[in-house]
Formats: sequence, C-alpha cells, structure tokens
Amino acid sequence: MSNLYAFQPLKVPAPIVLLTDFGLQDSYVGVMKGVIASICPTVPCLDLTHGIPPQQVVAASLCLSQAHAYFPDGSIFLCVVDPGVGSQRRAIAVECDRSFYVGPDNGLGSGLWRDQGIKQCVQLTNSPYWRTPNPSETFHGRDIFAPVAAHIANGVDLAQLGNPLDAADLVQLPAAPLSVTADAITGVIVHSDHFGNLISNIPASLLTPACHVYYQDRRLPWGQCYADQAPGQPLALIGSHGFLEIAVNGGNAQAFFHSQIGDRLVIRR
Amino acid sequence: MSNLYAFQPLKVPAPIVLLTDFGLQDSYVGVMKGVIASICPTVPCLDLTHGIPPQQVVAASLCLSQAHAYFPDGSIFLCVVDPGVGSQRRAIAVECDRSFYVGPDNGLGSGLWRDQGIKQCVQLTNSPYWRTPNPSETFHGRDIFAPVAAHIANGVDLAQLGNPLDAADLVQLPAAPLSVTADAITGVIVHSDHFGNLISNIPASLLTPACHVYYQDRRLPWGQCYADQAPGQPLALIGSHGFLEIAVNGGNAQAFFHSQIGDRLVIRR
Amino acid sequence: MSNLYAFQPLKVPAPIVLLTDFGLQDSYVGVMKGVIASICPTVPCLDLTHGIPPQQVVAASLCLSQAHAYFPDGSIFLCVVDPGVGSQRRAIAVECDRSFYVGPDNGLGSGLWRDQGIKQCVQLTNSPYWRTPNPSETFHGRDIFAPVAAHIANGVDLAQLGNPLDAADLVQLPAAPLSVTADAITGVIVHSDHFGNLISNIPASLLTPACHVYYQDRRLPWGQCYADQAPGQPLALIGSHGFLEIAVNGGNAQAFFHSQIGDRLVIRR
Repeated sequence: MSNLYAFQPLKVPAPIVLLTDFGLQDSYVGVMKGVIASICPTVPCLDLTHGIPPQQVVAASLCLSQAHAYFPDGSIFLCVVDPGVGSQRRAIAVECDRSFYVGPDNGLGSGLWRDQGIKQCVQLTNSPYWRTPNPSETFHGRDIFAPVAAHIANGVDLAQLGNPLDAADLVQLPAAPLSVTADAITGVIVHSDHFGNLISNIPASLLTPACHVYYQDRRLPWGQCYADQAPGQPLALIGSHGFLEIAVNGGNAQAFFHSQIGDRLVIRR
Repeated sequence: MSNLYAFQPLKVPAPIVLLTDFGLQDSYVGVMKGVIASICPTVPCLDLTHGIPPQQVVAASLCLSQAHAYFPDGSIFLCVVDPGVGSQRRAIAVECDRSFYVGPDNGLGSGLWRDQGIKQCVQLTNSPYWRTPNPSETFHGRDIFAPVAAHIANGVDLAQLGNPLDAADLVQLPAAPLSVTADAITGVIVHSDHFGNLISNIPASLLTPACHVYYQDRRLPWGQCYADQAPGQPLALIGSHGFLEIAVNGGNAQAFFHSQIGDRLVIRR
Repeated sequence: MSNLYAFQPLKVPAPIVLLTDFGLQDSYVGVMKGVIASICPTVPCLDLTHGIPPQQVVAASLCLSQAHAYFPDGSIFLCVVDPGVGSQRRAIAVECDRSFYVGPDNGLGSGLWRDQGIKQCVQLTNSPYWRTPNPSETFHGRDIFAPVAAHIANGVDLAQLGNPLDAADLVQLPAAPLSVTADAITGVIVHSDHFGNLISNIPASLLTPACHVYYQDRRLPWGQCYADQAPGQPLALIGSHGFLEIAVNGGNAQAFFHSQIGDRLVIRR
C-alpha cells in the first residue's frame, strides 16, 4: 500500500558556506554554527575556509571569487572578514543569480557579483531577523550575519531583511594590476597556497604555449602537471583556478623563490 | 491528493557539539565522528573547537562557558580534554536545563552547570552503551564518550547510562581571581584569541563609561568597536563574550603588550 | 489517521570521509564539499584529516589504515594525497567489503584493502561522472574524485565508472620494517601525534607485560594510561590504535626524545 502515495522527497536547503578570518582555535566559528542551527536546524554548514589572514578583505574576496562556482544553486555565502565591524560600514545581504552573499559591505563580495549578476541587495536594518536587537559591536557574525543567513535558508525574502540598496553603491575592491600589450603581459602573484604554489592574476585565456614566463629574471618551463618537471624543479602551468601558477614539483615554490604577494610576473609573447 | 495527509515534519536531532584538545592533524576527531555516525546517522556534529592547548582543562571550561548559550535546546556537548584518561577520574554525563554534557569529571563542565541547572547526572558505568566493553585506556573519547553522546542523541535517558551521582560531588574548577572594592576592580586576562584580543574575567555589569582601565601601568581609552581608535592603537571595550576586552585596532593586542594569561588588569572607579 | 500509514524511514547515505594533505587555509577542501553537495545534497561529509604533510602518501595510508574501522558500513573514503596528479598514475575507485575508496592508485588505500577484502575495482575513465570532461591536471580531487564519490553516494555502481582493474595490479606500499625473533622485536616509530605521542608499528598482539621496551638506549616502564607515571616522565603503553606507543605523562614525548619518524624501537622478551 505504501506505493500508492508519493512521498515528498526530502528537501535539503542549499548550504550556508562560511568564509572568515576567525581561525579554528577559538569558539567563534562554532558559535555561529550554533546560532544557525537554532534558527534553521536542517541547513548544512560548509566551511570554505576560516584561515584568511586577519582582516585581509582582499584575500577573502579572491578566495570567494575562485570558489563560488563550485557550490550548488541557492548557496548562501556567509562571509565575515570585517575589520570595520561596529563602525559605519554597512551590513548587507545580496541576492545574485545563483547564490546569496551575507556580510559586510567592504568589497569582500565584489568578485562574486562581478561573475554572477545582482538581483537585489539590502542593508540589514531589520533587527527582528537578528539574534538580538542589541548586537555586540565586535561580533556581527554571531548576532547579525549568521541569523540572517539562517533566515534566508528558511526562505525569508531579502526584502524582509532591510532597506533596498542600489547595486551601484556597493563597495568595490580594485582588481589586482594586470597590463596587456602586444608583446607582453604583466601581472602579479595574488595568493600562495598551502603547498607553496604561487597563483597569479593572469588568466589562461591570455596564454599560449608559445608564451615565455619570466619570474625573478628566470625563464620558467611550461608543464601541464607538477610531475612534468624533475622533483625540486620549478615550472609554470595553468592552475586549477584557471590562472597562471608557478609551482615546484614535490616542493614549495613560495619557499624556493622567497615570494611575496604582489610580486611581478612577466609574460613575453 | 497529497495534501490530504499531514507529513511528519523531519525531526533533526539537536547537534552534538565537540570540544577537544585533539587538534586537526590526526584522525582522532574524525574517528569520533565515525563512531557517532555509526550509532546515530542523522545527528549533526558541530565543532566548537579542537584547538584547546593540550590538557588545558581550565581553557576548555572557559570556552564552553562562553559558548553554550548560542546552541539549540537539547545540544549535547561532547568534551574531551582529559589528561586523567584511564585513571580514577570518573566519566560522566550531565543533563542540564537546556543541554547535555558528556566527558570527564574534571571540572571542564562546571561553568556550564553554573549557568544552567543540573537535572540529573550519572557516572558512565554501563558498558553496553560504549563502543566496546574493553575501552582503550587512552582514548575514552572514541570508546566511551562519543558512543554515549550518540545514544543520548537517539533518545536514551541518562538513567540507562550508569549510576546516579550527586551533583554536589562533581569536580568544580575555581573561578579566576576577581576582586571588587568600592574604588577598584582587579581581574585577570583569561584568554587571548586568534586576533590577539585579550579577554578578561571582568563582566560588563561591573563597568561604566566612567571607569578607568589600567593595564601594564597604561590607561586605556574606551571604545565600542575596534575602529573607534586609530589603526595600531590599543583600546578597552566590552567584548562579544560580555567581558572587558583589550584590543588593538587592526592589530594584535597580545603581541603589542606581550601579554600572558593571568596578567592583572585594574579598573579604577 | 496519521498512524495508518507507515512512513518511509529517512535514509541518510553513509558518509563521504575526506582525507587530504590540503590543509585548511585554502578553499580546496571547501570546494570539494561544494562539488559533492551539488551532486548528492544529503550525504554527510566527515573530515578524517586534511593535515597530512604535503605529498606524504605513506602517512596518509597509515592514517586511513588506523581509522577506517570506526566508520559506518558503506562509508566512502575520498582520499587525495596525490603528488602524481595529472601524470600517468591511475585514478581509481575500489569497493571493499565494508566501504569504498576513491582516489589515486599510489598505495594510499593499500592498508584499507589489506584489512577489508576487495569486491571490485575500476579505473576512473568514464568522464560523464566527472565534473567536466576536461579536468584540471592539478586538481583531480575537485574534478574527478569528489564527483565520483558523490555519485557512489547516490547509488551508482562502480562498473559504471570505468574499466575494471585486477586487484593484484593496484599499487602497494611496503610495510614499515618489523623484525621478530625468539628474543627480540625490532620496529619503528611511524607517527608522532598532536600530543607528541610516538606511535610504533609493533602490534599489541606481540607484547606481554614481561617485555622490556628500549628506545634511545633507555628502558621505559610500562603503563596502562598516561597517569601511571609521574608528570613529565616517559612510559610505554598500548595506544588507542592497538600498537606500542611511547608517551610522557602531561608532556610531549616527541620533544622529550627529539624523535623522528623511522626511529628504531627494540623489545626484549
């Protein structure tokens, strides 16, 4: 008899994806998840990373830009790298074509909505959707952003959360410097990852196998994967982010080159 | 026809919240979650932190005290900072007004049940609720505490888990030293967080804007948020935990002051 | 009326268990979970650890060997410690008696299937089960292994995923050196954990209380738990992994002995 009745398939909300500079030593991340579970017990929380260097909004924005496309439609990016917490900077929620952003209006989300259009955005002024009408002035992640994200997971429309904003008024971060001429491309190292791989801002679309890659006055051979060079040898390749990357097979390019974020890379073509 | 029948709403168990000093380099935390999933596949596991310094029961107790209020009713705090594992210290489960504690009887939970009353507590002597009747003498987290927490998530009553204990017999940790006189409050730094913010044991309720905060013979200005001082400048504020906190705008107060846990703070009023 | 109809119990898929050397600073782990959630929104993801030292396949294999037994039947171990990514090394999925392995064919899983028999194994050649037919040559975790694990969680049979392999052809890692004679056992330190406990490859089954444990020309007393020696004193015990372990009560044996992986231990009997 049970097959006479169609059962509603279990509807799991799209995840809340957390991105912060809180680290994992303290209880801050756990407490945000506790607040979320109190409001929307069924929403999965996924950690993008909590290892953004303290207060580095540019690094957080880059991380979000490179990651958002891999999450399901409807994902809610809850982003708290927020050196201006409690000051005049606005708290916002943004509905993009495929996902939501909840966090400070400090440019962190600008790469997300450069890739996905904005449908609507609001300033978070409606305190009934906060954890308390008197939020801590130093932890909006717990008292404003996490509860708002959980309410969005519950289906609350952004229009309920506060006053509409003009998308053109949102804070934008400047792009990392990239110059393209007929015979050269000049970009910079924008991230050094856990393995010491150096990720640049030069997109694969600008590159051909005929390009010569120069870094620190050294010309680097091309590879398709790390093992294309001998162990310990550096190479240039198209990284998984879709940008030119410098690596050392079985080693650490950051240590090999003593690289710093912002170091210049030149491509001759 | 589907709307003729009310569907049972999906009941998600309240989460098991993990607090340990295990770090994340080894498999210990993952293995505990595997044991939990084997007994109660639907309970969400939330990490409070696994970054308590090894064997620091006082730090773990403080972390739990400051965090428990943010988790849903029925949450199960599975706490394993347990230098006495395998010795005569008791393994316990405690049912408080809003949540459960499972872990060693070494004072770790004492802040939790100071805030929430105790309904019942038991010594974990009933081995059918363990993973094995012959638990490892060095990893009760895996063999006793995680399975017991999962059984509680499944609805097992504490009375099934072992012999009742008198709440007055549970190990208590002493509170950090706090002295209050007519013209001064003297407290201590109890925690330095990931950002280098220094959290004290002086509650907001004792403070007014007229109080003067002294630390290391320096009088600190008040702020409401970090940005209330110039970048790089120290300030005193009421932190998100509800206690006096010392911070440096855009910087690291722990490094600025070379602070240590236990450093004395004086408030003149 | 509601009790006239038996409700289908909620079927939660067995978890996907992640084991990598990616660390938690970057977005790599989060992105893999995003890919999984896009394909199988209901499968829980559990982290075994992401703290394997970069490219240390042997360490990863040991971690998996010691942990797999604690996870539920049907668990899918998604393992990405993969220095040969993009080269000729094969991408594989293996169905064992109680669980699945998805990852590179570099020996990482060999301890798992030494413990659990192999039912079937395939090379991952069927790109419709990948995220894209043109995977990144440096991040098969995101583009091949995570999507394949999610499809297995959805019930896809391994035979769909690629060409069958002969189990005898899978890469095996050599076991750590262990010699057993009538009067001595010689083994090595294979892991130093977060607490500095030194885990050896000498199984409990070879040991009796009459054995004498020698390390660095020092004879160590036996204990059952850490507290069996005075604070700061070293001891030998049977660790939670089931192997001989050297620890310091309340301290760090790795720092105490300046130990290294591969250090020799001798047992006289």
